[in-house]
Amino acid sequence: MNRQQLLDLIRHKQSILCIGLDSDLRKIPHHLLTADDPIFEFNRQIIDATHHLAIAYKPNVAFYESQGSRGWRSLERTIEYLATLGDNIFTIADAKRGDIGNTSGQYARAFLAAPPDGLGFDAITVAPYMGSDSVVPFLSYHDKWVILLALTSNSGADDFETQLMHDGRPLYEQVLRVSQQWGDAENMMYVVGATRPELLGLVRKLVPDHFLLVPGVGAQGGSLQEVCRHGLTPECGLIINSSREIIFASAGMDFAKAARQRALTLHQQMQQELDRVGAI
Amino acid sequence: MNRQQLLDLIRHKQSILCIGLDSDLRKIPHHLLTADDPIFEFNRQIIDATHHLAIAYKPNVAFYESQGSRGWRSLERTIEYLATLGDNIFTIADAKRGDIGNTSGQYARAFLAAPPDGLGFDAITVAPYMGSDSVVPFLSYHDKWVILLALTSNSGADDFETQLMHDGRPLYEQVLRVSQQWGDAENMMYVVGATRPELLGLVRKLVPDHFLLVPGVGAQGGSLQEVCRHGLTPECGLIINSSREIIFASAGMDFAKAARQRALTLHQQMQQELDRVGAI
Repeated sequence: MNRQQLLDLIRHKQSILCIGLDSDLRKIPHHLLTADDPIFEFNRQIIDATHHLAIAYKPNVAFYESQGSRGWRSLERTIEYLATLGDNIFTIADAKRGDIGNTSGQYARAFLAAPPDGLGFDAITVAPYMGSDSVVPFLSYHDKWVILLALTSNSGADDFETQLMHDGRPLYEQVLRVSQQWGDAENMMYVVGATRPELLGLVRKLVPDHFLLVPGVGAQGGSLQEVCRHGLTPECGLIINSSREIIFASAGMDFAKAARQRALTLHQQMQQELDRVGAI
Repeated sequence: MNRQQLLDLIRHKQSILCIGLDSDLRKIPHHLLTADDPIFEFNRQIIDATHHLAIAYKPNVAFYESQGSRGWRSLERTIEYLATLGDNIFTIADAKRGDIGNTSGQYARAFLAAPPDGLGFDAITVAPYMGSDSVVPFLSYHDKWVILLALTSNSGADDFETQLMHDGRPLYEQVLRVSQQWGDAENMMYVVGATRPELLGLVRKLVPDHFLLVPGVGAQGGSLQEVCRHGLTPECGLIINSSREIIFASAGMDFAKAARQRALTLHQQMQQELDRVGAI
């Protein structure tokens, strides 16, 4: 999906909601555990209940890998199911990969190449530590996106990401600056956590045109309104992720309905914010 | 495997050789492609031919993921096969994972937990960018190891890893320093590339007791003797990886024999170096 298609999708749905499929087998409703593939069955029902409210789904690959080859099959089934929604959904593999060039090339193929060569995601999260040749292979796929970690939502972000470099600016700023040489606002986004909205405003100034993928709203404590105030632009520029708060809104038979209800609340708040800046 | 067992293994085999199973389906000998599971069959024959010369095997997870759930099954079969060698082999998942705490916990379980909960590797490579809570979950498994990226062997290492921080020291030094608070020489190693042997000497001074996993000898141009001169200690302290140079030494019917021959050459050089510093 290219930038224009993504912008059209956002305007059509009046939403910047990404739903994180952190589909932990130990947390999904008990009655699903007898299904052939409980994780896929959970995802399918979540997707059916929410896809009119969300523009993106983001499977968190760790929760699939932790189930071994069966889990990987659940991931394959999930992306196949999302593909049936066509251009109505932007798909993100939250994988945080990154390795030397020839190895990153393998990861890129695994997640971005069209089936049957790869899973055919629209985007993948990538870690920047190893630098250019660890990131560039992901940028060679047409109409696909790298979502580079910049300033994450966790407490450990203060160990390195916010530490000052020799020029007095933090490491995440160097990541934003250097990575401009590898891609642009048509094929690269950045992860910037909702838990530091004041820094999100600084990031917005440094990369005025790039989409930011913002985790940390909800369970991790970030405020949707604060994030929008600092990060939203007339061309939108934000995709806001919510995972646990939506998908585990209820552990009962009504889990999909409860997820829709929570997504609806976020969608309404997002509509107001998008309207406020004139993005819809 | 704990540190003492690893040291015993090194002395017993007089080797610090790790063989990287970067088992690219497009590069393995053609005659294996008719096997039920060509990647596993390739690995099995490489392991059979070399396990008396190597102390460790390091499947590069990207080459398995790029084959989808079938590739993940090849990885499961490979670690199951390595497990039959018991304490005679140290196993490393070269996965370069790292995410917020609860997600890193899932990756840790996937790779380090004993079967059937996880793959039961002895160690996993982890990326440090996201800081403490992205690394610490991997350290909660008894007698398992985190191998943290410090100074990698690729050209992109100069984008961030070697950049100077506010105190005038490079980022990789900050990674070495800060991560001392999370683990110690009994459960943490560092990745330091063979392509910068002079910096390897500086790293050795900063972490005198830690094992260093050194990729980049061979195909990437690093010299075994240089690496040993800068990094070897009387307590050993090095695991040197070679991947493509060994496993793809021949593309013919004789690939396993050719791999053994190449491993044997490295083993002899390692014996000399270990003998020189009195580590065996």
